[in-house]
Amino acid sequence: MRHRLKDVAERAGVSVKTVSNVVNGYVHVRPDTRARVEEAIAELNYRPNLSARHLRKGRTGVIALAVPELDIPYFAELARYVVTAAADFGWTVLIDQTGGGREQERVVASGITDHLIDGLIFSPLALTAEDLAGLDGTPMVLLGERVDHGPADRVVIDNVGAAREITGHLIGLGRRRIAAIGSQRTDEGASARLRLAGYGDALRAAGLDYDEALVAPASAWHRADGAAAMRGLLTSGVRPDAVFCFNDTLALGALRALHEAGLRVPEDVAVVGFDDIEDGRFSIPTLSTVAPDKAQIARLAVELLANRLDGDRAAPARELSAPYRLELRESTQTP
Amino acid sequence: MRHRLKDVAERAGVSVKTVSNVVNGYVHVRPDTRARVEEAIAELNYRPNLSARHLRKGRTGVIALAVPELDIPYFAELARYVVTAAADFGWTVLIDQTGGGREQERVVASGITDHLIDGLIFSPLALTAEDLAGLDGTPMVLLGERVDHGPADRVVIDNVGAAREITGHLIGLGRRRIAAIGSQRTDEGASARLRLAGYGDALRAAGLDYDEALVAPASAWHRADGAAAMRGLLTSGVRPDAVFCFNDTLALGALRALHEAGLRVPEDVAVVGFDDIEDGRFSIPTLSTVAPDKAQIARLAVELLANRLDGDRAAPARELSAPYRLELRESTQTP
Repeated sequence: MRHRLKDVAERAGVSVKTVSNVVNGYVHVRPDTRARVEEAIAELNYRPNLSARHLRKGRTGVIALAVPELDIPYFAELARYVVTAAADFGWTVLIDQTGGGREQERVVASGITDHLIDGLIFSPLALTAEDLAGLDGTPMVLLGERVDHGPADRVVIDNVGAAREITGHLIGLGRRRIAAIGSQRTDEGASARLRLAGYGDALRAAGLDYDEALVAPASAWHRADGAAAMRGLLTSGVRPDAVFCFNDTLALGALRALHEAGLRVPEDVAVVGFDDIEDGRFSIPTLSTVAPDKAQIARLAVELLANRLDGDRAAPARELSAPYRLELRESTQTP
Repeated sequence: MRHRLKDVAERAGVSVKTVSNVVNGYVHVRPDTRARVEEAIAELNYRPNLSARHLRKGRTGVIALAVPELDIPYFAELARYVVTAAADFGWTVLIDQTGGGREQERVVASGITDHLIDGLIFSPLALTAEDLAGLDGTPMVLLGERVDHGPADRVVIDNVGAAREITGHLIGLGRRRIAAIGSQRTDEGASARLRLAGYGDALRAAGLDYDEALVAPASAWHRADGAAAMRGLLTSGVRPDAVFCFNDTLALGALRALHEAGLRVPEDVAVVGFDDIEDGRFSIPTLSTVAPDKAQIARLAVELLANRLDGDRAAPARELSAPYRLELRESTQTP
């Protein structure tokens, strides 16, 4: 009793050809006939050809990866790994760019258009645990620390530890006036808070003062924001001898601002980023950075989602941690 | 007669709660009960809550943007513009990364999972007009020149003219040994062929020889490919005084290879790219490039798709052209 074009035609009292014309949007259908056919489509819940295998479970075979911004290369690179990992499960991955706004993130969390997708791998910026509590539950794996207290499975990296290590690397070079670029208000994102905490830890461990004047906020993390923040630090008179940028695009902007100011990297100011995007392997100078294991993040997220889809959806949420390493390049090492 | 949980429960001879448990994947359902419920779901073509407005037309309210690679920043930037333009039509845009393979591109062109999406904006690399001819027609707008002879609406820019102009800019600087990086076999992509044609036109117009030895192939257009091609040109002994890279990521790789070889840009070798990605506004030196009007490309594509969805799907395909301009920066201009 799965409905076909024929069923719609019978219900609407028209020919199969007419239904086909309406479904395919041809204009030469009388408005009242079109209305009758559309009514019959809605009543029978007619949908063309969803693949039988997924349909048996009421599924589409499609999952979504929702990220704030694809033009932050970290997310574009992560997307490639998620597509690869999901192919092992026969899933098509569609990518939703939320813009990081809370309302758009709520729409995504509710299954995009009411259960169009089977599941979701989600890197939220603005969403809260309360937003998720009200939803009827598109199976979801969260990336990062924005939403905690376990409303859903989650993959994280040790942001505090990674930030502490990369700051420690700068201290190990003998730098003492280490700036940070990318701090944010708590409602803007969790990564900034954790990376700032790791930065502070490293300074304290080395007996260095935490100086507010060396910490530059950036509510977005694009190159332009990094360049502007670096220019601000240079004109403020704080005279940094190193800078930890909370992502690589900020760092690439900072490199540009230092170049324009006639300062040498790393001789005058050493620079580090976070993410290990491809850009930093070709920039002049190349960029030292924290390299999260993106392939592993993607694999863990896909596996958690698969387990959730085929297993007990009411089971307690799980949290898995992916590794990272430091990639040390020209921006902190004189040849 | 749109089916609800209750209808599935009646057909399967179980409680609504049991159907809900199956749909939500809870494990504490007996296998034979689960099988009966799944059978009933399939028979009734039960799908939860597709939005009524779209359903009336048999639609999902979702379109896809299919691109070869999101980590080519041009496509990530274009995606942002498409999301913005589509919002005016109330569409959610999901992004499919095809990898540029013909089989994956065929899957996308057939509507991803059988009409999951209402329509498609598609930048193919490998797809042919014959591939499209066999499909039952997910409404589609093509971007670029890969598929011509009008099987679908299309948005293009004048690649030949743009390549001629940017090469002419290099000739105007007095450069005479102008290399090209990014040529491809005809089955690898159409942009390479058109940009190479424009490059050749400009040389001929200036009375310069077209020298095969100055043309470096690159089957992928990432930074690493540009760096490798540039190194090849430098060691081959052809001694270029300028290079036209067929996209910006190739050019950023070439800048890196020139830096490593101790050559100055633009004094020793002037460099231009194509795409105007954000990276080139912050690189050292900043990159001269062709800037296609990405916002306009996105807007035209979305409007063509809207017209096709609501209009006559059998009407002849339309082709629209978006403008471009040259952005001249440090890589061709001594301060």
